[in-house]
Amino acid sequence: MTDQNIQVLLARRPTGDVQESDFKVVRTDVPTLQQGQFLVRNHFLSLDPYMRGRMSDAPSYAQPVTVGDVMVGGTVGEVVDSRNERFKPGDRVLGFFGWQLFGVSDGTGVTGITDQDLPLSVYLGAVGMPGVTAYVGLMDIGQPKAGETVVVSAASGAVGSVVGQLAKIHGCRSVGIAGGPDKCRYVTDELGLDACVDYKAGQLREDLKTAAPDGIDIYFENVGGPILDTVLTRMKPFGRIPVCGMISQYNALEPYPVRHFNAILVNRLKVQGFIVSDQLARWPAALKDLGQWVRAGKIKYRESIVNGLENAPAAFIGLLAGKNFGKQLVQLI
Amino acid sequence: MTDQNIQVLLARRPTGDVQESDFKVVRTDVPTLQQGQFLVRNHFLSLDPYMRGRMSDAPSYAQPVTVGDVMVGGTVGEVVDSRNERFKPGDRVLGFFGWQLFGVSDGTGVTGITDQDLPLSVYLGAVGMPGVTAYVGLMDIGQPKAGETVVVSAASGAVGSVVGQLAKIHGCRSVGIAGGPDKCRYVTDELGLDACVDYKAGQLREDLKTAAPDGIDIYFENVGGPILDTVLTRMKPFGRIPVCGMISQYNALEPYPVRHFNAILVNRLKVQGFIVSDQLARWPAALKDLGQWVRAGKIKYRESIVNGLENAPAAFIGLLAGKNFGKQLVQLI
Repeated sequence: MTDQNIQVLLARRPTGDVQESDFKVVRTDVPTLQQGQFLVRNHFLSLDPYMRGRMSDAPSYAQPVTVGDVMVGGTVGEVVDSRNERFKPGDRVLGFFGWQLFGVSDGTGVTGITDQDLPLSVYLGAVGMPGVTAYVGLMDIGQPKAGETVVVSAASGAVGSVVGQLAKIHGCRSVGIAGGPDKCRYVTDELGLDACVDYKAGQLREDLKTAAPDGIDIYFENVGGPILDTVLTRMKPFGRIPVCGMISQYNALEPYPVRHFNAILVNRLKVQGFIVSDQLARWPAALKDLGQWVRAGKIKYRESIVNGLENAPAAFIGLLAGKNFGKQLVQLI
Repeated sequence: MTDQNIQVLLARRPTGDVQESDFKVVRTDVPTLQQGQFLVRNHFLSLDPYMRGRMSDAPSYAQPVTVGDVMVGGTVGEVVDSRNERFKPGDRVLGFFGWQLFGVSDGTGVTGITDQDLPLSVYLGAVGMPGVTAYVGLMDIGQPKAGETVVVSAASGAVGSVVGQLAKIHGCRSVGIAGGPDKCRYVTDELGLDACVDYKAGQLREDLKTAAPDGIDIYFENVGGPILDTVLTRMKPFGRIPVCGMISQYNALEPYPVRHFNAILVNRLKVQGFIVSDQLARWPAALKDLGQWVRAGKIKYRESIVNGLENAPAAFIGLLAGKNFGKQLVQLI
């Protein structure tokens, strides 16, 4: 291997909004393999909101990235060299090699991708962690019943787009919340949701009343903040709120104070936070279902792709601001 | 019957703090019985925080009391006249006759009390609606496991005192939150909880750290507001919060904004509102267990009793301000 590795390191912990200068791009030698190891050339890096939490050392469910270390992240790529019996050059693999061109592993946490009919990138999206997140949150916590009304925020995003389509597959009225008319049109016209509310239009409560006139049975929460507070006022008795993310809060120096917590009591709501990595037992069934629905065209997806690791920091900052449209990826080939 | 009935009516809907002038005490004739009806002379009226909601016409889970109608409420008493085959003079009954001396019923919603070994008033407290509320919220939503830490607010109150003792019965570390040293002493020394934090001492977060140093698995919520917000910061991963009441908010003109909603995501909490009347199927098992534990001395209780319906409004106002100590009752004999 004469190629050099490219890595994006965490240069410092952000305060408030993430800056490009919080990252540092470096070139290093590709590591030499030890017995039992193999080398992966990554084709795509996934950018996901949870990474904002890993940049911070506030108490959280996961260890923060150490300053100076490679940023963490899911990747898909191809084995290019191997001293491991299970993984051979040419194998397509899903791994967690982080923001870098090459990764070395002994196989721990790496999954071979044997199906050849789907593009590699989908294993970072609808048939990967975001898809399973949508599946576990909606099906296990939300427990949708046909005829119920499901609302999902960040509805054109990697998780939200799967949630909205899963709700349709299960016979629900499915309503998205997204930012701007383009995303909303995509949510209704391409993903097939029944309605989509543009939160940037400035009349969320009224528009939610129109889109979900009988109230909301399930709200799949991706954003937090004032959208959450407004949706709480429209929940029906015995409603469920799977709390998957609160992207509006990740850069916030002070948390948004939620005024309508009282709705949890009055309407006997169940509000439950979850993280998909706690539910490993659910992954095989979820991935099987999601793969079939993607193949059958029942789950569509869209990707926002930037090229090259040097563009990953700007793309990540854009993701936190909702500038992406669909699953945000960094292409490395 | 030559007695007159005494009734407390809702005179007007309160704005903010409840006033005595929001009620009106009237004397009326005792009704004449129709075929199938019976007359009950109430011995005790239960005063409960939920009644504040019924005084208001804000959207809620129950119909408000109509202005001019008798205030609703649970009662225990004795049948004194009957044209009904099931209920005979001398029968002790639990009913929902409201704030009045006499009630008439055809039997709907009235339960005969056949056990003679417990005082009537306990059927309005530990072996009644408040006890079942504690039982359903802690056991079904909280699902305590031996060794876990349970925190309950309003720990000396009718519901909270049962929650704290149930947690002990199930092998948990049981910590109360109450207002003032007298109530806290009662919670530890008489009810047998492991610790009690006085929220009026002004250092709730520090005191909770001392009382529950490893964090909180279950928080049984009776009060809302700043206590809830502080407890959220001390919850352990996969903690559960049954939301039974938010008494600090019932008189509030503006809701307290909750700053630490984010803890639900980070610690994957389950927060669930409930109302005991939604869980009628659970009442028989709960009442059987509670009765046995009261007889065995494993559940102790304390009552705050005022005499006469004309004193019910002031006692109710005191209850909302936490001035009661244990189950608040109005004695009518």
